[in-house]
Amino acid sequence: MAETISTFNCSADSKNTAYYAIDTHDSIEAKITGAHSVHRSKSWQNPDLRRQFFSSLLLALEHHKAALKTIYCSESSLSEARFEREFHRMLQQIILYSNEGWLWSKHRESVNLPDRFLEKHWIPIGPVVVFGASNFPLAYGTLGGDTVGALAAGCPVVVKGHSLHAGTSNFLAEITAEVLATHRLPSGVFSHVLDKGYEAGQRILLDERIKAGAFTGSISGGMSLFKFAQNRKNPIPFFAEMGSLNPVIVLRNSNSGVENWKNLANAVTEDAGQFCTKPGLILVPIERLEEIKFKLREELERNPSYPMLHPDIYNKYEAKLKEIDPIIPILRYTNHTPWNGDRAIASCTLQDFIDSPILHEEVFGPFTCLIGYSNLEEIERLYCCIGGQLTTTFIGIHPEKERIWSIAQEHSGRLVVNGVPTGVEVNRNMHHGGPFPSSTDVRYTSVGEASILRFLRPITVQFSSTDL
Amino acid sequence: MAETISTFNCSADSKNTAYYAIDTHDSIEAKITGAHSVHRSKSWQNPDLRRQFFSSLLLALEHHKAALKTIYCSESSLSEARFEREFHRMLQQIILYSNEGWLWSKHRESVNLPDRFLEKHWIPIGPVVVFGASNFPLAYGTLGGDTVGALAAGCPVVVKGHSLHAGTSNFLAEITAEVLATHRLPSGVFSHVLDKGYEAGQRILLDERIKAGAFTGSISGGMSLFKFAQNRKNPIPFFAEMGSLNPVIVLRNSNSGVENWKNLANAVTEDAGQFCTKPGLILVPIERLEEIKFKLREELERNPSYPMLHPDIYNKYEAKLKEIDPIIPILRYTNHTPWNGDRAIASCTLQDFIDSPILHEEVFGPFTCLIGYSNLEEIERLYCCIGGQLTTTFIGIHPEKERIWSIAQEHSGRLVVNGVPTGVEVNRNMHHGGPFPSSTDVRYTSVGEASILRFLRPITVQFSSTDL
Repeated sequence: MAETISTFNCSADSKNTAYYAIDTHDSIEAKITGAHSVHRSKSWQNPDLRRQFFSSLLLALEHHKAALKTIYCSESSLSEARFEREFHRMLQQIILYSNEGWLWSKHRESVNLPDRFLEKHWIPIGPVVVFGASNFPLAYGTLGGDTVGALAAGCPVVVKGHSLHAGTSNFLAEITAEVLATHRLPSGVFSHVLDKGYEAGQRILLDERIKAGAFTGSISGGMSLFKFAQNRKNPIPFFAEMGSLNPVIVLRNSNSGVENWKNLANAVTEDAGQFCTKPGLILVPIERLEEIKFKLREELERNPSYPMLHPDIYNKYEAKLKEIDPIIPILRYTNHTPWNGDRAIASCTLQDFIDSPILHEEVFGPFTCLIGYSNLEEIERLYCCIGGQLTTTFIGIHPEKERIWSIAQEHSGRLVVNGVPTGVEVNRNMHHGGPFPSSTDVRYTSVGEASILRFLRPITVQFSSTDL
Repeated sequence: MAETISTFNCSADSKNTAYYAIDTHDSIEAKITGAHSVHRSKSWQNPDLRRQFFSSLLLALEHHKAALKTIYCSESSLSEARFEREFHRMLQQIILYSNEGWLWSKHRESVNLPDRFLEKHWIPIGPVVVFGASNFPLAYGTLGGDTVGALAAGCPVVVKGHSLHAGTSNFLAEITAEVLATHRLPSGVFSHVLDKGYEAGQRILLDERIKAGAFTGSISGGMSLFKFAQNRKNPIPFFAEMGSLNPVIVLRNSNSGVENWKNLANAVTEDAGQFCTKPGLILVPIERLEEIKFKLREELERNPSYPMLHPDIYNKYEAKLKEIDPIIPILRYTNHTPWNGDRAIASCTLQDFIDSPILHEEVFGPFTCLIGYSNLEEIERLYCCIGGQLTTTFIGIHPEKERIWSIAQEHSGRLVVNGVPTGVEVNRNMHHGGPFPSSTDVRYTSVGEASILRFLRPITVQFSSTDL
């Protein structure tokens, strides 16, 4: 009998009843072989075929939307409203990337020299392994930005499905397989692997036929895979988007009203704060610390409480709060529902923060740390502790005129002015990534056009003029 | 007294008389600090200033051309004609990259959403360390594609000068420093480090303030630095262009005349075969092996002999030939001039080649290996031994219709049809790089527009619409 895994519903406080078979050594081998032979045969390198496939995939996803929602909500405990937003985003990504991929596949003009001419083509790098995120089963998951970016570039993909939402992942894989079959495309274009632990993913990544990898998740998980990728006999690009504290800096010149605190508190607590861009640090002028703490607490208390993705994630969150509390006391708001993450806030001075390494790591959940600073120059020292960030947010007037703007730019992938860092719109100007350790390669992003470029490589073809 | 190094003139069989001071721990620290503070101050991020600097640099190089030629020829033993070609190429790269860098610095249009708008800027990644090549003191050296690509991107550069041509490197650094001073630009924009061994380079690469590295040289040298870069506390992109055998495949349908053998033989022997793209393997239909061997030998014998870059390089070449000879006998043409590399050729069947690992590595010098193949399908096995290549060349009619074309494409950065792989023209369609181990990242090149993109990173700035 095949080994299986099941998933958990935090909202209902019960195990889901379905069981999903995990892959065997042989089935994984077959999937890598399938991806490799698709790449070799170039059967996925026809941009028109890819566009047809993506169009059908959009229809199929719409067709199965209701069933997908049921599985999604039961496995992630995310709300139906959130499903709608994330589902929409998944479709939007598919539309955008399939167009971009098509543009890259177009012939580029050649350069003519007296005795030869040179063409440059962008070709797919080869089979790609994708490790989906726990917190976005759709947008950063099995058919999320990494997978669709690689497919749009013409690369076959092997997805290591996230075990917390094995059913959602499996269902998306089934839908994709069906669409491939309808178009008589080889199943090796897209494969899906389930596993209990880390072994299957490592094995796929270490296979010499795999030519790139992408990951969204924790720093420890991302870095462990990054090392595997770099220490292969033939190292490959590996794009990991990892943790980030996303500092919010409230300037002295800010005359921010209640709206700001409401928006910020929502960005901390919504969907139990399980966002890569959740504002985890809020820096305020020290003389306003008490006033702003009071306002933020009010908002946190008023906000709804949400179930976390999984008991393991809930337990990690709880453990982290218990570690922090003795050092910097935490105020919590609980609604006594099992697996709902307590909305929580701590506050301290910048010096206290710098002296407390436990605070320098992301806390995944509805927690934020309020920090009082004396002068903006101090904040440079904050970045020395926390390193590169996905985002830095400024609240106030003309932050770009302050020296801290440059420092923040050096340490961030996106700067937000008078907004919140959550809500990563998919468009060509979005960059979702940042300096290490928020990403392994600051130059790339899983969101927007540059997503596809990660999986393309140039090749020059040089003909002799006498061949004309 | 400062420690010094000197260089050697193989043509004259004598040491050059000048001595160059090597850097101390303190001077290296000062140079890294200088680069870092230039990056911090953004004083090199003004594209117009950069264009002015590059224009003056072109004039200064022209002004010092004669003196540069003397040092170049005495240190590399390359000819004056070769100096002219390489000098021209260095200038051409500066012109091309300074224009491309300027284009990237231009403002890009913003994306407007109902409540916010997003701008995307490409900003320099930070200080870059460049390790120049031994075989191209100008085009891949101190002011070569890597350095100029990084400078054009707005990054300050620290060059680890190649010790074999310390004087050329030093002189180029002096010219650059002078131009920076004339424009009242900080000296930290470009620094130059000399060292006897590997320590200085490793130290610069491991410094957390350095944000990318580029290298041209051997696989062992490149991989050792690549590992350092990936195992830093904050890993950085490291672009190494390393060894390549550059197979030439003569198809059965080729009716190649004497011109082909002449061109190929020249590409093997010119400048003592010290090119990254020297054809190191020539694959011919087995039934034509003896005929083509005879013709190539004639050409090799007729061709002039050239001094090698340095006695160490000559000795390595000799040692390599002595290792190969007992396995596959080598025919040599010598002119008994000290340090001139013997023109040399070996021939064997494809199976012999596959069974002889010593032949799977690049031989740096005027040697090539002629291989008889029975059918084109066999050649796939060749790539399994030698891995990724900078180039693969086809001689014959419509090679793109053969299955081996796809295999070659998978394993090469550039495909050449009815030409020779040497002669890397600088233009936007050129790609000089290839799958591992010919480069560490198949997606990048040190030649052409993509050179600059290696050193840029995107940043998104998101404003609230109420800020308008």
